[in-house]
Amino acid sequence: VIRPFSAARPHLPLGSGREFDRIRSIIQMLGERGGGLGDDCALIAERDSFLAISTDVSVERVHFHLDWIDLQEAGWRAAAAALSDLAAEGAQAIGLLSAVTVPAGAAEAELLEVMAGIAAAAEFAEAQVIGGDLSAGPIWSMAVTVVGRVGVPITRAGAKPGDELWVTGELGAARVALDAWRRGEEPSPEARARFAHPEPRIEAGRWLAANSVRAMIDVSDGIAGDARHLSAASDVEIAIDLESLPLGPGVMEAAKRQKISAGQFAAEAGEDYELLAALPADFNAELEFSRDCGLALTRIGRVAEGSGVRFLSMGRPIELGGFDHFG
Amino acid sequence: VIRPFSAARPHLPLGSGREFDRIRSIIQMLGERGGGLGDDCALIAERDSFLAISTDVSVERVHFHLDWIDLQEAGWRAAAAALSDLAAEGAQAIGLLSAVTVPAGAAEAELLEVMAGIAAAAEFAEAQVIGGDLSAGPIWSMAVTVVGRVGVPITRAGAKPGDELWVTGELGAARVALDAWRRGEEPSPEARARFAHPEPRIEAGRWLAANSVRAMIDVSDGIAGDARHLSAASDVEIAIDLESLPLGPGVMEAAKRQKISAGQFAAEAGEDYELLAALPADFNAELEFSRDCGLALTRIGRVAEGSGVRFLSMGRPIELGGFDHFG
Repeated sequence: VIRPFSAARPHLPLGSGREFDRIRSIIQMLGERGGGLGDDCALIAERDSFLAISTDVSVERVHFHLDWIDLQEAGWRAAAAALSDLAAEGAQAIGLLSAVTVPAGAAEAELLEVMAGIAAAAEFAEAQVIGGDLSAGPIWSMAVTVVGRVGVPITRAGAKPGDELWVTGELGAARVALDAWRRGEEPSPEARARFAHPEPRIEAGRWLAANSVRAMIDVSDGIAGDARHLSAASDVEIAIDLESLPLGPGVMEAAKRQKISAGQFAAEAGEDYELLAALPADFNAELEFSRDCGLALTRIGRVAEGSGVRFLSMGRPIELGGFDHFG
Repeated sequence: VIRPFSAARPHLPLGSGREFDRIRSIIQMLGERGGGLGDDCALIAERDSFLAISTDVSVERVHFHLDWIDLQEAGWRAAAAALSDLAAEGAQAIGLLSAVTVPAGAAEAELLEVMAGIAAAAEFAEAQVIGGDLSAGPIWSMAVTVVGRVGVPITRAGAKPGDELWVTGELGAARVALDAWRRGEEPSPEARARFAHPEPRIEAGRWLAANSVRAMIDVSDGIAGDARHLSAASDVEIAIDLESLPLGPGVMEAAKRQKISAGQFAAEAGEDYELLAALPADFNAELEFSRDCGLALTRIGRVAEGSGVRFLSMGRPIELGGFDHFG
C-alpha cells in the first residue's frame, strides 16, 4: 500500500462553524481511512517534491446565479476557487480536471462557455486541462480538481507566537457585489469583477513560500472564519486589527449601508480568494512583494501563545460571524 | 511551466457517440490549453513513475435513484466508478477526494452514509480519503477524484493487429438490475449487487499491466461503446463475437424479455466496470489470472488492421448501440 504524505501527518484541526462541524464528523467517521485532512490541499510525497491536490465544487444557485454572471465567468470562478487552494500551499499549478453537470436543454455552446472559463483560469495559472467528466443534472455544477507541485508545502500549521499576520490584495469587494445583486441592483464594474473574475494567487503564494512564510490559508470563507482554521491548525492565538484590513472597492459604502464598520464587513466577507499568511516578525519585504506580484501585502495582526482568534476594533474585542456555503 | 506527461502525448481519439461529440468539441476549443485528453486517466510524470488521476461525477436521478439503492451504496458506486479508471490505467490507488453536494434538509447522518460508502470503496482499493469539499445543492451529487501511481501506464492506445481482446468478470447484470427497477420490480440480489456494489478492478488491472497487456479501458459505458474508444485510440479494427461475452446473473432472461440476444444485451449494457484488454496472441495465462484475481478472464475478440468495431453474432455482422449518460 502506497501511503500519501498525509498518512504521516495528523489531520489539522479546523476552526468553528457549522460546515466544519460536518467535516469534523466525517473525519471522525473515517478514522484511519482518512489521511492528512484539514489543510488546503492533499499532499502526495514524490522523491524531491510533493504533489498538491485539491477539489472544489461550485453549484448554480448556491455559489453563483446566472442572472449575476455568465457561464464563462462561472467556469472561471469555479476553477479559480480550486486553484486558490494550490496558491495557499505555495504550489505551482500543473493541471486541472473538471467534472461538469449540465442541465437538460443546455446548448452545446453553453457547455463550451463554461469550459472556456475553466480553461482561461487554468491558462492564467500556467496549468493545462488534463481531464474531466460530463453528466446531465438539474443545474450547472462544476467540480474542479487541481494538481500542483511544491518543494516544501506550506500548510495551515506552522504559525509561531511572535509571527505577524499578513493578507494579500484587498478584502470585501466580492461581498459588495453579492449584496448589490441580492438587493436587485447591478454592482459597480470594479466590485463585480472581484466576484466574477477572482485571480488565483499562485504567484503570490510561491513568492511567500520562497520568502520565509510559516503558515498560509486562502481566504475563501472570510478572514473571520479562515483565521480560525489557521489558529486551530497552528495551535496559536491570533489577533486581527479590523482597522488594518485592506478594503476593496465599494466596501466603505456597503458597510455604512449595513451600519457596521468597514473592517467588520471585510472580515466577514467570503469569496475573496486572497492569501492569509503568518510571517516572522522581522519580515519587511512587502514592497518587494508588491513589485514582484503586482499586489498589496498588508500586515493585519499578530500571532501569540494561546488559542482562538481575537478581532479588535479600535483596540477593543469584537465578535464576528463567518461565511457559510451551507447558509 | 511544469508540463504534465500529457503535454508530450497527443490527445487520444474517442469513438462515436453524442457524449463523445461534446467532449470532442471541448478538446477542439481547448487547443493547447488541453493536455493528453481522451484516456482513462490524466498522467503526471514523476522521476520513475507516473501519477494517474481521474475524476468522475455521480448524480442522483441520472446515475442512481434512492428508491433503488441506499446512500452508502451510492457513495460506494461513485467512488468505485472513479477507481475503475485507475484500474484501466494499470495503476495502484493512493488516495481519493470527494466533492459532495448535499440536498437541503438532508440529515448529517445521511452525509455520513454517503461518505462511509466512499470510504469503504477507498479501503477496498487500499486508498485513503485525502480531501474533499461540501456544498448545498438540489440533489445528491458526488464528484470523486482518484489518484494512483503506475510505473508504465496502460493507455487505450497500443492494441496491435494480431492481438486478442479479453474482458474481466461478467457483463450485463447491472443492466438487468436497472431494467427491473425501471419496470417497478425489485431485481434479484445477485443482479442488484452488481449495480449497487461494483468492485473496482484495481488488482486485475495491475495483474494485466504486469503480464504484457497492450491497451486497456474500463467498460463503464458498455463494450459496444468502449470498444470503439479502444479501436479509435489504437487505430485498429476490433471484431467482437457476441456469443463469447461472459454473461452476468439474469442476463439470459432479461435479454429474452427484450427479444434480443444475450450477447447484444451484455454488449450494450453500461455500469459494469470490468476491464477490456488487448493482449498478444500468445497470451494463455487466463487460469493464472483467475487464480490470482478471483475473477474470470474471457477472450471475446480480435484486433486487426483497419478501423472501427465489428460485432459478430453467429459469425454475421450486427449493429449495436452504446450507453449514454446524457440519454
